[in-house]
Amino acid sequence: MATVADIGLSATINLLSALAFLVAFAVLRLQPINDRVYFSKWYLKGIRSSPTHAGAFVQKFVNLNPRSYLRFLEWVPAALKMPEPELIDHAGLDSAVFLRIYLIGLKIFVPIALVAFSVLVPVNWTNSTLKDSKLEYSEIDKLSISNIPNGSQRFWTHLVMVYTFTFWTCYVLRKEYGIIASMRLHFLASVKRRPDQFTVLVRNVPPDPDESVSELVEHFFLVNHRDHYLTHQVVYNANTLAKVVAKKKNMQNWRDFYQLKYDRNPSKRPTCKTGFLGLYGEKVDGIDFYTSKIDKLSQEEAEERQKIAKNPKFIMPAAFVSFRTRWGAAVCAQTQQTRNPTLWLTEWAPEPRDVYWKNLAIPFVSITIRRLIVAVAFFFLTFFFMIPITFVQSLANIEGIEKAAPFLKPLIEIRFIKSFIQGFLPGIALKIFLILLPAILMLMSKFEGLSSLSALQRRSAAKYYLFLLVNVFLGSIIAGTAFQQLDSFIHQSANDIPKTIGATIPQKATFFITYIMVDGWAGIAGEILRLKPLIIFHLKNFFLVKTDKDREEAMDPGSIEFSTSEPQIQLYFLLGLVYAAVTPFLLPFILIFFGLAYVVFRHQIINVYNQEYESAAAFWPDVHGRIISALVISQLLLLGLLSTKSAAELTPFLIALPILTLWFHRYCKNRYESAFVKYPLQEAMMKDTLEHAKEPNLDLRAYLSNAYLHPVFKDEDDDDSVSSDEDKDFDKILVPTKRQSRRNTPIPSKYDGSSSPSLHDVVEEKL
Amino acid sequence: MATVADIGLSATINLLSALAFLVAFAVLRLQPINDRVYFSKWYLKGIRSSPTHAGAFVQKFVNLNPRSYLRFLEWVPAALKMPEPELIDHAGLDSAVFLRIYLIGLKIFVPIALVAFSVLVPVNWTNSTLKDSKLEYSEIDKLSISNIPNGSQRFWTHLVMVYTFTFWTCYVLRKEYGIIASMRLHFLASVKRRPDQFTVLVRNVPPDPDESVSELVEHFFLVNHRDHYLTHQVVYNANTLAKVVAKKKNMQNWRDFYQLKYDRNPSKRPTCKTGFLGLYGEKVDGIDFYTSKIDKLSQEEAEERQKIAKNPKFIMPAAFVSFRTRWGAAVCAQTQQTRNPTLWLTEWAPEPRDVYWKNLAIPFVSITIRRLIVAVAFFFLTFFFMIPITFVQSLANIEGIEKAAPFLKPLIEIRFIKSFIQGFLPGIALKIFLILLPAILMLMSKFEGLSSLSALQRRSAAKYYLFLLVNVFLGSIIAGTAFQQLDSFIHQSANDIPKTIGATIPQKATFFITYIMVDGWAGIAGEILRLKPLIIFHLKNFFLVKTDKDREEAMDPGSIEFSTSEPQIQLYFLLGLVYAAVTPFLLPFILIFFGLAYVVFRHQIINVYNQEYESAAAFWPDVHGRIISALVISQLLLLGLLSTKSAAELTPFLIALPILTLWFHRYCKNRYESAFVKYPLQEAMMKDTLEHAKEPNLDLRAYLSNAYLHPVFKDEDDDDSVSSDEDKDFDKILVPTKRQSRRNTPIPSKYDGSSSPSLHDVVEEKL
Repeated sequence: MATVADIGLSATINLLSALAFLVAFAVLRLQPINDRVYFSKWYLKGIRSSPTHAGAFVQKFVNLNPRSYLRFLEWVPAALKMPEPELIDHAGLDSAVFLRIYLIGLKIFVPIALVAFSVLVPVNWTNSTLKDSKLEYSEIDKLSISNIPNGSQRFWTHLVMVYTFTFWTCYVLRKEYGIIASMRLHFLASVKRRPDQFTVLVRNVPPDPDESVSELVEHFFLVNHRDHYLTHQVVYNANTLAKVVAKKKNMQNWRDFYQLKYDRNPSKRPTCKTGFLGLYGEKVDGIDFYTSKIDKLSQEEAEERQKIAKNPKFIMPAAFVSFRTRWGAAVCAQTQQTRNPTLWLTEWAPEPRDVYWKNLAIPFVSITIRRLIVAVAFFFLTFFFMIPITFVQSLANIEGIEKAAPFLKPLIEIRFIKSFIQGFLPGIALKIFLILLPAILMLMSKFEGLSSLSALQRRSAAKYYLFLLVNVFLGSIIAGTAFQQLDSFIHQSANDIPKTIGATIPQKATFFITYIMVDGWAGIAGEILRLKPLIIFHLKNFFLVKTDKDREEAMDPGSIEFSTSEPQIQLYFLLGLVYAAVTPFLLPFILIFFGLAYVVFRHQIINVYNQEYESAAAFWPDVHGRIISALVISQLLLLGLLSTKSAAELTPFLIALPILTLWFHRYCKNRYESAFVKYPLQEAMMKDTLEHAKEPNLDLRAYLSNAYLHPVFKDEDDDDSVSSDEDKDFDKILVPTKRQSRRNTPIPSKYDGSSSPSLHDVVEEKL
Repeated sequence: MATVADIGLSATINLLSALAFLVAFAVLRLQPINDRVYFSKWYLKGIRSSPTHAGAFVQKFVNLNPRSYLRFLEWVPAALKMPEPELIDHAGLDSAVFLRIYLIGLKIFVPIALVAFSVLVPVNWTNSTLKDSKLEYSEIDKLSISNIPNGSQRFWTHLVMVYTFTFWTCYVLRKEYGIIASMRLHFLASVKRRPDQFTVLVRNVPPDPDESVSELVEHFFLVNHRDHYLTHQVVYNANTLAKVVAKKKNMQNWRDFYQLKYDRNPSKRPTCKTGFLGLYGEKVDGIDFYTSKIDKLSQEEAEERQKIAKNPKFIMPAAFVSFRTRWGAAVCAQTQQTRNPTLWLTEWAPEPRDVYWKNLAIPFVSITIRRLIVAVAFFFLTFFFMIPITFVQSLANIEGIEKAAPFLKPLIEIRFIKSFIQGFLPGIALKIFLILLPAILMLMSKFEGLSSLSALQRRSAAKYYLFLLVNVFLGSIIAGTAFQQLDSFIHQSANDIPKTIGATIPQKATFFITYIMVDGWAGIAGEILRLKPLIIFHLKNFFLVKTDKDREEAMDPGSIEFSTSEPQIQLYFLLGLVYAAVTPFLLPFILIFFGLAYVVFRHQIINVYNQEYESAAAFWPDVHGRIISALVISQLLLLGLLSTKSAAELTPFLIALPILTLWFHRYCKNRYESAFVKYPLQEAMMKDTLEHAKEPNLDLRAYLSNAYLHPVFKDEDDDDSVSSDEDKDFDKILVPTKRQSRRNTPIPSKYDGSSSPSLHDVVEEKL
């Protein structure tokens, strides 16, 4: 049993190591050579283009100004200083709302911790149950509910506290939900014109023997959304083409590199080797070699483009349909189009950069089956993942290696290496699995057929949370694998399950405190140091960076991985809520985690991360729902715990609590969720009217014509900058609209080439 | 233990009594005097206006033609003869689909019974477990699963059979869901113009200090549905007025009666007594008395109308908003209007006669709370209803009555009366409760704030089904009250519950067979006889009918009470599915029930019932869902039963079954449910275009202007005929539309009396 002193020591060590990380960060970030790692966002924004400290050559790499080292924590106020509206403007709503998750943690747990320490700790402390009992106990346990004798009337305090905590949490949640819903609506209302505001993704267009998909879509919407339909873009299966283009781009980079080399030193034609990574093989002229390769790929690309343009097999039964007004798009996205609800499925189009192109062709029926398959697979993954790992572990022993690769035997038999392998091998399979887990979950989500990156991230996050809940939270409380738990639970009475778990809760407090420090604190400190990107950047910079473009790419600012970060935060919410009434001593550790994480992530979001897409905080209902579920779990576990403490008269009050909480959840769902799912017509109409008044002559068709083109069909050059200055490009393009009298001719004659400029035209133009 | 002979005898008795009922019905229906009871639908349709047999005076009351008695079952083929499309035309889609519930019972259980008897019965029969055991058993048990020894490989047969039954049931359900969805869509597409196709019910209009509700609604929809909004009608709280009008109508009836009497016998002014029901009190001149009363009520009515017209307090924050096109209404009903999803709630308007006016003013927030309250109340009603009944029973004993009313003592002390009371009293409280139960459940549903009669019926049906499931099905299987069951289940392992119930299932087969015969067969036979309406009609006819209108009202054809009939049918589905694999001997009894009920209800729907409203089979998702739930319950119970039979190797296969079934349910929900919830835009557009081509000059505003008027504001005379020939009336009215240029003036100047003819105008016109 860990004593307070043990915990204190551990906390000190962890705090010191976190501090060491922070100091290391403070030092590293001041070096100009690391500038691109720690300020990537500013580079991407174009505000910073080279390290700020000009001067001698050495100063280009190392900061020699001693005064700047004294203020090594100056980034903290700097990170906190930027006001939220500016932050939203700078990094997007997703990031700003993501930070609010940490803030909500502070909002919930600071008052709870204060109340718990001023009420529960004295109530628990002034007993002598543990002293009188012959059990081993620590000082921490004296602060916990374990110190209250069975059947004591003092449990009423805990009951009142749980009600208070629940009430407070719900109050904060409700308020936050309201704020974020209005932030989202405000964001959607105030952002400048975006193609997704006018566009709806139509999936599962039924096959028609007489018409192509494009014609079918056009006719359907001209008939059924007569006054609102503007244009559409069919979706092409351009996965092969995308591969070829990427390869070609790589080759072009190499050619540019050799060309540069030759330009600098025209006396000698640069040479390269044809083998893998240029490490071996025949020596050839670099520029000629890559030029010929590019020519070959260009030819391949042209063929592929030809195929896509000519062969209807490459047209997917899906399309992005754009409307004249936001109102028209809002109507189409929210309504059912035909009798058969599995055909002509409409949903809001995701932002162009948020689209996950590969999944657009999956038919509706297969999606149901895919979901079933993934649900079953996920169930087995969660409860039985230890089986294959144990199997791999049993294979990966010294004898096995020696048998498989006899030539390694002399090496392995060296004592040091042998002991290293023996100590290392058993854990490695599990470690590799845990590192791969988010990727596996993401693959599962992709298999389910979701069509936007943001939805994929949300789905993966849900899975990861369940995995953590079962294998980290429950797995730590109850010994044995998840499968063994499942087995024992099945053979247990339904209401014995919270009892079994609840009774073990107080004993595990010290374990979870250590967990918070090691996983939480250290994780955050590691986050700010960005050790991996730092090393990779310098390695790339040293070995691979040939052109400026390469350096830009080597920067790799990354983005918040919602699918892994959010479930981890949720674990701390769960721990905090479960232990609030049981062992309040755990709360300060959680508070430190939330506070530290808030500052660090705010800094990272301002200076480093560059979000791939903007979903306008579409993930909030998930966050809210998971905090509610943590609340309900904590209530059930307390119910179980108290029922082992002979406090039966409390049971009815405790049973009412989860019911009320779930009802609160339903209330919030009714009240706020629609802001994240639907787009109110009033908002759409307001924005339409305003825009119409401001820009009566706006050529919306030109603006939208290329917005939802597969990235591979856009100019290769602006491939990367699609995200930021898309609309600027579009404003310039003025595609002549051939058919202007459409408003009065609802059903046009057969598709005869005079149609709106569809992807066909665009593709053919490029050929 | 009932033997086959016992069951056979019981079946014979029940069949004979059912036959006696049928004969009685055959005789009674041929008497001209009963014509209005057994052919009310035809009277209401206006096809029949007096008994068909003209002739002597006696023949007006009694049918003397002996040949007609010989064909006493001729109504059966007659009932079956009418083809379904004609039936839909004659009685509406609701009734036709309601009949399909019985038909689906036959479709599911005829093949299941055949397979079960040809496979399961031999498999069960050719064992000797029961013979070898020393337990008491009947021949029926030898046909059941009880006869298979523990751990036998023969259980695989049952497994295969359960899979077959499940597959078949799902197949039938899926097909039927598809058929009914397309019937519904076809019905909605082919019915003639109805006001609800153009109208949306808007609830929770926010209060505005500057504008009245009517102005607010008009402005809001003129802005946000600019091209589609046509007109609207605010909802008035006219409950008091409705009462006054009803009273006045009654008085008018009396005056007409006395006037008629006077006209026939002008020599004597008719007199009446002023007391209760005219039984005592001062004798006065009948015509004068009622004329003065009517005058007083007219004045009261005028005052009330004045109040409603002038006082904005009587205007509810709700309105029926009508659109130019079905497309516009479909869009408005399916979309969210404003940021706050609890304001400006839009939903399809129910048919005018389906509206439940009283509930239209309940604010959204209170609805959530009301639902919570009702859920809790319903939980207590289901599990604890025996407590107050036991309490009443303990009060209502002979001694209690003697104490409360000593003067009754000599009467009660008579032996016969005493024993009657003693035998009668204990049960009477329960009986009264069970008779009142549907009304109580309906009251609960009304309290929840649903705004249409059809929704109320559906909600009540769901509650009644749960009540029957807990108290009839589970209550019969497990001894003890529902509360005791709940208590024992809470203290039991979660997966012991199906075991406990499952193990008892085979023993209860004979009980349920008797139940089916007594409750099902006899109930159906009683249904066709219509004994209660028959007696009441003749009583009214004899004592109360004064005018022809009174006779019309005395007829009271009634309608299918979906809220009570459907849950009862569902109980038979549950019994059939549970016993299909356990005791197939029960199936024929269910088949007889479904067959008999189908014929009888078809006859009643054709000849008697007159539906209050038409919801276009909106109840089907509920029916489907409940059959699915019966399927899952049967699978879980079989799982429990087999786990007591040491057939553990079957468990994984049996666990997969409910999961697959639930997945099937989800699939069906995705595929078909939207047909019952949404209205596809394509359909709306098609119908709009067609209508526009056919009647380009249709004055829709006139057609819709009075459609959603509170019935009390319509002409008193056509109060009853609102249902059938509403639109004929509206076609005649041609209200001059004052504002025709609205299309081009989206936001009109302030409401200044020149607005569309709203209820205000109508109300004022009547004053």
